[in-house]
Amino acid sequence: MSKQSISIMALLGVPIIEHGDDVADVILKALETSNIQLLDGDLVIIAHTVVSKSEGRIVRGDEVSVSDRAKEIADQNGFDPVQVELALRESKEVIRSDGALITETKTGLICNFSGVDHSNAPKDSYVLLPENPDRSASDILRMLTNSTGVRLGIVITDTQGRPWRKGSVNLAVGSAGINAFKHNRGKQDLYGRTLKRSTVCQVDELAASAEPLMGQADEGIPIVIIRGYEYEDGSERSRDVPRPKSEELFR
Amino acid sequence: MSKQSISIMALLGVPIIEHGDDVADVILKALETSNIQLLDGDLVIIAHTVVSKSEGRIVRGDEVSVSDRAKEIADQNGFDPVQVELALRESKEVIRSDGALITETKTGLICNFSGVDHSNAPKDSYVLLPENPDRSASDILRMLTNSTGVRLGIVITDTQGRPWRKGSVNLAVGSAGINAFKHNRGKQDLYGRTLKRSTVCQVDELAASAEPLMGQADEGIPIVIIRGYEYEDGSERSRDVPRPKSEELFR
Repeated sequence: MSKQSISIMALLGVPIIEHGDDVADVILKALETSNIQLLDGDLVIIAHTVVSKSEGRIVRGDEVSVSDRAKEIADQNGFDPVQVELALRESKEVIRSDGALITETKTGLICNFSGVDHSNAPKDSYVLLPENPDRSASDILRMLTNSTGVRLGIVITDTQGRPWRKGSVNLAVGSAGINAFKHNRGKQDLYGRTLKRSTVCQVDELAASAEPLMGQADEGIPIVIIRGYEYEDGSERSRDVPRPKSEELFR
Repeated sequence: MSKQSISIMALLGVPIIEHGDDVADVILKALETSNIQLLDGDLVIIAHTVVSKSEGRIVRGDEVSVSDRAKEIADQNGFDPVQVELALRESKEVIRSDGALITETKTGLICNFSGVDHSNAPKDSYVLLPENPDRSASDILRMLTNSTGVRLGIVITDTQGRPWRKGSVNLAVGSAGINAFKHNRGKQDLYGRTLKRSTVCQVDELAASAEPLMGQADEGIPIVIIRGYEYEDGSERSRDVPRPKSEELFR
């Protein structure tokens, strides 16, 4: 018998995060406020803005000098030139710059504006993605495990667009304590047939599960706990999710 | 204060579905078996295989005559020729046929093999997507609403690959009673700034939330209930999610 239910619980009382705040500490305090005790197997899903702000990955717009290239892309598309400039700085390759600014970031994520965002950033500022989100997840995991003694998984999320489908969805940019993929190969289907290949990106699905509670506006719920999902750890991290160039279906 | 938790509950005792079974009836019986009573605002998430089988969208492989074109694509890629043939029949356009068979289906979905699948299909058979999944969702919604008297949302799901990211995720192929998108434009962010644009594909996120319980193998949980998510209905359905050709980021 499989598990019969999964709960997704909001952590209440998470303050607005400042550079230097300890995210694990913020989580432990919010757990207390929310009257939730972490149990073995719980997953902690964290909006990247929390991690980025704690790591000082915030840039004031008036401190950014905009290059000619950024100005040109911004002009052609009606984009914010500072956001374009920061997106270019965060990228290792520009994949598309007409109609949308799609880049590959230095950590290999393919996304709009290299994940550089103006909303939920302090006044006149921009939030960048964490420099190494898998490492950030590992750091938070280690500290939470030390404090609580239970087995946990961490997923750091961002809400991003998709090439074939309208609307954004929350997905995993960093993870620790849980394998990025669930491999079903070798399991049997309903009719007893062995599955030849079926790999599910479980960290993306868990990230998506958290967004309905997190929201994109002033909900003030950047951290949620998912309880009741059975998962395994492994060596695959969120950095392994983007397709390498050779395997991409389109570029 | 936002909602503080969301529950995702498996419906137990869903039988293997046969052509002609009434899906609403199956759901009502499984709710009884699972000792769950539908409440106002509950969402019923249904794997498309349940709907497809009830609608007779199953094809026996030995009854399919494979065209030269399908044979060629199958040979070049090591694919199953019958699956390729069915995928071509279900498609209105082949987007890519080297390394992957990506098509646009007659209902406008862009996916691998037009959603034609061999796993969780009866012996030697293939399951197709429902002919009109939004209509199927509406039919199921109407019958469930008549029986229960509560406001519900329905999402019919399939697990599909993504162009830029490895691993599949569950997404919405049909929906009713819930708008496909959540529009955040005009809401305020944490710092009181008004969001200019932020559209989330909530039906895809809810589909993804259900997969961790549903699984891809012999879990026998093709239907789950999501409780506690606040949503609105509207005129946007799952058919509105795929980007029209002119808006696609890659083709």
